[in-house]
Amino acid sequence: MAGNSIGQLFKLTTFGESHGSAIGGIIDGCPAGIEIDYQFINNKIANRKANDSAASTSRKEPDEVEFLSGIFENKSTGTPIAFLVRNTNTKSEDYEHLKDAFRPSHADYTYSQKYGIRDYRGGGRASARETIARVIAGALAESILKKFGISISAFVSSIGNISIPEINKNFSQNEIDSSEVKCPDLETSKKMLELLTKVKAEGDTLGGIISCRILNCPIGLGEPVFDKLHADLAKAMMSINAVKGFEYGSGFMSSKMKGSEMNDELIIENNKIGFNTNNSGGILGGISNGEEIFFNIAFKPISTLMKPQKSVNLQNEEISIEGKGRHDVCAVPRAIPIVEAMAALTLLDHFLRNKSVKI
Amino acid sequence: MAGNSIGQLFKLTTFGESHGSAIGGIIDGCPAGIEIDYQFINNKIANRKANDSAASTSRKEPDEVEFLSGIFENKSTGTPIAFLVRNTNTKSEDYEHLKDAFRPSHADYTYSQKYGIRDYRGGGRASARETIARVIAGALAESILKKFGISISAFVSSIGNISIPEINKNFSQNEIDSSEVKCPDLETSKKMLELLTKVKAEGDTLGGIISCRILNCPIGLGEPVFDKLHADLAKAMMSINAVKGFEYGSGFMSSKMKGSEMNDELIIENNKIGFNTNNSGGILGGISNGEEIFFNIAFKPISTLMKPQKSVNLQNEEISIEGKGRHDVCAVPRAIPIVEAMAALTLLDHFLRNKSVKI
Amino acid sequence: MAGNSIGQLFKLTTFGESHGSAIGGIIDGCPAGIEIDYQFINNKIANRKANDSAASTSRKEPDEVEFLSGIFENKSTGTPIAFLVRNTNTKSEDYEHLKDAFRPSHADYTYSQKYGIRDYRGGGRASARETIARVIAGALAESILKKFGISISAFVSSIGNISIPEINKNFSQNEIDSSEVKCPDLETSKKMLELLTKVKAEGDTLGGIISCRILNCPIGLGEPVFDKLHADLAKAMMSINAVKGFEYGSGFMSSKMKGSEMNDELIIENNKIGFNTNNSGGILGGISNGEEIFFNIAFKPISTLMKPQKSVNLQNEEISIEGKGRHDVCAVPRAIPIVEAMAALTLLDHFLRNKSVKI
Amino acid sequence: MAGNSIGQLFKLTTFGESHGSAIGGIIDGCPAGIEIDYQFINNKIANRKANDSAASTSRKEPDEVEFLSGIFENKSTGTPIAFLVRNTNTKSEDYEHLKDAFRPSHADYTYSQKYGIRDYRGGGRASARETIARVIAGALAESILKKFGISISAFVSSIGNISIPEINKNFSQNEIDSSEVKCPDLETSKKMLELLTKVKAEGDTLGGIISCRILNCPIGLGEPVFDKLHADLAKAMMSINAVKGFEYGSGFMSSKMKGSEMNDELIIENNKIGFNTNNSGGILGGISNGEEIFFNIAFKPISTLMKPQKSVNLQNEEISIEGKGRHDVCAVPRAIPIVEAMAALTLLDHFLRNKSVKI
Repeated sequence: MAGNSIGQLFKLTTFGESHGSAIGGIIDGCPAGIEIDYQFINNKIANRKANDSAASTSRKEPDEVEFLSGIFENKSTGTPIAFLVRNTNTKSEDYEHLKDAFRPSHADYTYSQKYGIRDYRGGGRASARETIARVIAGALAESILKKFGISISAFVSSIGNISIPEINKNFSQNEIDSSEVKCPDLETSKKMLELLTKVKAEGDTLGGIISCRILNCPIGLGEPVFDKLHADLAKAMMSINAVKGFEYGSGFMSSKMKGSEMNDELIIENNKIGFNTNNSGGILGGISNGEEIFFNIAFKPISTLMKPQKSVNLQNEEISIEGKGRHDVCAVPRAIPIVEAMAALTLLDHFLRNKSVKI
Repeated sequence: MAGNSIGQLFKLTTFGESHGSAIGGIIDGCPAGIEIDYQFINNKIANRKANDSAASTSRKEPDEVEFLSGIFENKSTGTPIAFLVRNTNTKSEDYEHLKDAFRPSHADYTYSQKYGIRDYRGGGRASARETIARVIAGALAESILKKFGISISAFVSSIGNISIPEINKNFSQNEIDSSEVKCPDLETSKKMLELLTKVKAEGDTLGGIISCRILNCPIGLGEPVFDKLHADLAKAMMSINAVKGFEYGSGFMSSKMKGSEMNDELIIENNKIGFNTNNSGGILGGISNGEEIFFNIAFKPISTLMKPQKSVNLQNEEISIEGKGRHDVCAVPRAIPIVEAMAALTLLDHFLRNKSVKI
Repeated sequence: MAGNSIGQLFKLTTFGESHGSAIGGIIDGCPAGIEIDYQFINNKIANRKANDSAASTSRKEPDEVEFLSGIFENKSTGTPIAFLVRNTNTKSEDYEHLKDAFRPSHADYTYSQKYGIRDYRGGGRASARETIARVIAGALAESILKKFGISISAFVSSIGNISIPEINKNFSQNEIDSSEVKCPDLETSKKMLELLTKVKAEGDTLGGIISCRILNCPIGLGEPVFDKLHADLAKAMMSINAVKGFEYGSGFMSSKMKGSEMNDELIIENNKIGFNTNNSGGILGGISNGEEIFFNIAFKPISTLMKPQKSVNLQNEEISIEGKGRHDVCAVPRAIPIVEAMAALTLLDHFLRNKSVKI
Repeated sequence: MAGNSIGQLFKLTTFGESHGSAIGGIIDGCPAGIEIDYQFINNKIANRKANDSAASTSRKEPDEVEFLSGIFENKSTGTPIAFLVRNTNTKSEDYEHLKDAFRPSHADYTYSQKYGIRDYRGGGRASARETIARVIAGALAESILKKFGISISAFVSSIGNISIPEINKNFSQNEIDSSEVKCPDLETSKKMLELLTKVKAEGDTLGGIISCRILNCPIGLGEPVFDKLHADLAKAMMSINAVKGFEYGSGFMSSKMKGSEMNDELIIENNKIGFNTNNSGGILGGISNGEEIFFNIAFKPISTLMKPQKSVNLQNEEISIEGKGRHDVCAVPRAIPIVEAMAALTLLDHFLRNKSVKI
């Protein structure tokens, strides 16, 4: 009810503040007998880390995950899987000057007003550091989906006004991973890096768009009318820090198309039903149709700038604020594993929910 | 779990198929002592009806709502409010030819695959007729929000490639209502009607964009980290038939802005904290900040065309399909009360949830 | 949240007041493709009816159930199944004198205090008439469980101070049904009838105990640690009007036994694991163990008496109250189908929940 | 869904196995601004510990609780409160001989069957060690209820066949605490100790009954029809290890009373509405009526005996089993803080839920 859980049958509840002692969560509903792929989970954690790239130079953490329960002899037991990551590299003094200040476009003001109390250190609960719990649980979910052949792959399709020219091309995972900004188009990736360097020098920040593909999703996932698969994906994605928009299939562009352009005709291919096109983005009536699921997510630029901004404080005084310490220029490349995690959590939950539709 | 409920404290569960005996729902959690505004509810139902406009000429229903429980002497009693609308004008024979057919971009195929059985008459549960239950419950929710000064107003900002030039202008409710297509810009409204007439003659269909404003929302609504106010709004809107995208505040445009352009500076106005701009769309960190909440929703064109399309049937044969009976050219104007209903349901639920944050 | 739903995957939400227009509910999560056994459902409704017996002479209703959705060609479609029963035989005038009065041991006073408004006619939502929705949904659940060989059978083991001597005997369904008070022991049944006749003449009322057996429950149902099978059964039973106690297996008697007397030893029977005794009542650690599930439920006597009782009214005046109209002497025999319904709802829900434990 | 959460608005999710690295939980929905009473929490933990009494000589743990989040400068912030207790004194070798064995009346067999895998060390998740998370969260809940004047007090009313003669007497907290077995009647307490000593010498075990009183509960808590206050209390209590029965008010005895004996007459006392008697146990129609809430809970004897019992193993062989290591004779006195915790969790949850009934 208080909003820190997601999922119905594969349910994640997270906890933790940026500068508290730990971030973590409990997964309730992980099927029993699943071998835990620690390497896969650690790779996802590494993908989320600051990495001294043009986009990211912020706080570095060892980010070692400790699993506390629900695993016996490396297999899930069906009981809750609790895990935590200690916060070690916390420089609370970097935030002392923000104790009474409300940073523009941060959650400082709304948390203060809602709760009447606020852990101001590093954004507290509203910090993107919270997402490490999502990445860990999502990696576990994704490793389970992989056993059923389902794969999830996100990439950066825009940073600022630089975009991939052909978003629908089938990029390989290798092309994505080899880009410092996780943009699989080599030419675009270079331009993004140039833009990032320029904007960093200005003390300014950038946003962008992440595109995500889900392959081999079985037909039938999604629970109409409210828990449509794309509705739950939208909620999961919109719950990520800094996300301002979600679209799937031909998305906002659909609103400009005629029915005869938009509709995907059904065809017979190799004696099986298929589709001529995939403007639907793999979901019809809220239920997966077996085609590739495809969606885009818009991220706003990072709110903390390395240059002065006007704001106010608790005492209703106008002040000037400027970022101190370690901050990224653009969070979008680091958000790739978060998007993949939220997709995996949503999908596995619906995979399990679909098991009771027929008996 | 099976997806037919929305909301936590103000919870709506709906039922009904297009050509079944009735559509309806149960509202559980309506606060006690609320005077029911039947006129307001009936107006919303009327707004959703087909109205012989350029956009809509489809099936007409009396749509009389019967309340079955939870109301005593015209006031809510705190017990569940059940309601239903009988389906009377059902021409099942219009759908007999679709018994075995899968219509392109409809839910026919996925329902068949998921459930192994399908009420094919008029789209069954996947029909937009289901939304009448949302409109009724949403109207009740909106009438409660109005008592607290909160108002919701949606309008059509695009149909096909015709868009309002100034989307952020403060249109009056009268300007919206006086347009046949619910587009408050007179010039744009005319162009939309021309386009609709033209496309109707082609037997084709159109989509569009609805924009929605929420005024006077109190500060503090929204439950991070997963049930952020905009995440729940996104889910609610994406659950409406034919919706392909959602964005709030500066939305997808944010991804192209620099932090210094995007950030809303806090200011002191009349001794109170306010904001210089509202790119955030009234929500920060998932919690309403007291500014206007603003979002856009993209609708794809209606899937049923009055001209032949290729498809397949249950017997894996390729067939040609063409709409029979009564169908709209564009559903977007009729979706206005549905959008307002989903916004009201989401907002009232969070309004109630926020009551237990401080004691 | 407002308490009118039960179940997670097979979820029932009910509505309706004693003298409102209808009682009914929505079942969300009924698996698709189930043939509806209307005869079975109607038999259960009949079992719940007042029947001019020694125990029951109260209001008679035709109690015809109308299914509104979720069924197509007599099979469940996987979409919500809504149903209602009209209240026809409502003599609201019998309750006019109670408008301002709080009847002893009824919910009048607490509903007034909680909600600030109350439908006083016939007890409103607090009336046992509400249970007809449980019986209908429970009958559907039970008919599904029967397909898997699971059977549920409740009987009256006590009325007032008259009890069956051998509660653990395996009574046949026929023995139960042939008793006017649903007590399968012929001698005891006769004594109960005598007691009922005597107490009715006094204008007084009686309670009793219902015992319930579940046979062929598969091993593995129940979700520790909070949703133990017996914990969910307890909640389901305690939610029935007038229930004051629940025990399973050897129940309260267990508290007086030594471990060596209580423990059920595991044995090998026909090469399969079994148990020597069943003090556990078929559930170990909250999970069904394959043995017979057995529990008892205590009902208090009916609160409405046909003789004067002291009470108070809304105006804080002391008054005298006496039942008018039609009231039972003892509700226990009529509660048999309600107990069976709540058992079926609980069991089917856990049956579905157990499907996602292993994948 | 997987059963490890309880509560709707004040929601506890627990994790941990007896011999895993830690036991703990997340509280989601704790109101903001609550000062944490660490002393009160630690006292409750101490009450749950083995204490070298006649009843208990089992495994001793330091049981230090670490709070990981949701608290800032000693106050709750409205974000999730995570906590854990490390398992330090784990002698897994005591359980090595049980790897393949199913102990009588333990959950070994059902966990194996349900999950296909089992952490056999110390009972794994089914161990009563899990309840330490309940005690911590419940202590926090109880400390919040105390701010509103609500108090909870449980005591031992029976061990084996030794019972308090006058269960309805108003015992002081001091009388309870001064008894080694938490039985406030001095004479009965002595007899219980004698019985425990005798049964311990036999290598056998005992159960008993805990009675619990809630004072100053406000009128209006409880959400009919399914989430009646006593139904949720029943579920909470039945979810505690070894509990076999629950009754409230006059409980099972009600089934033997006439309506005229059972009914509590309403009266005017000091110009306020009150009740002549309290057979209802403080709850009418599922809603608290302002009177003392009173209930009894039956515990079966501990399943592990210090003498041989027959059983079977994974290989379907008949074996003999005897407890090794450290085990209590009777868990009932140590269960007092667990009962109080479950009562506090249930009550605070309903206290918060009741806040949205009227607006």
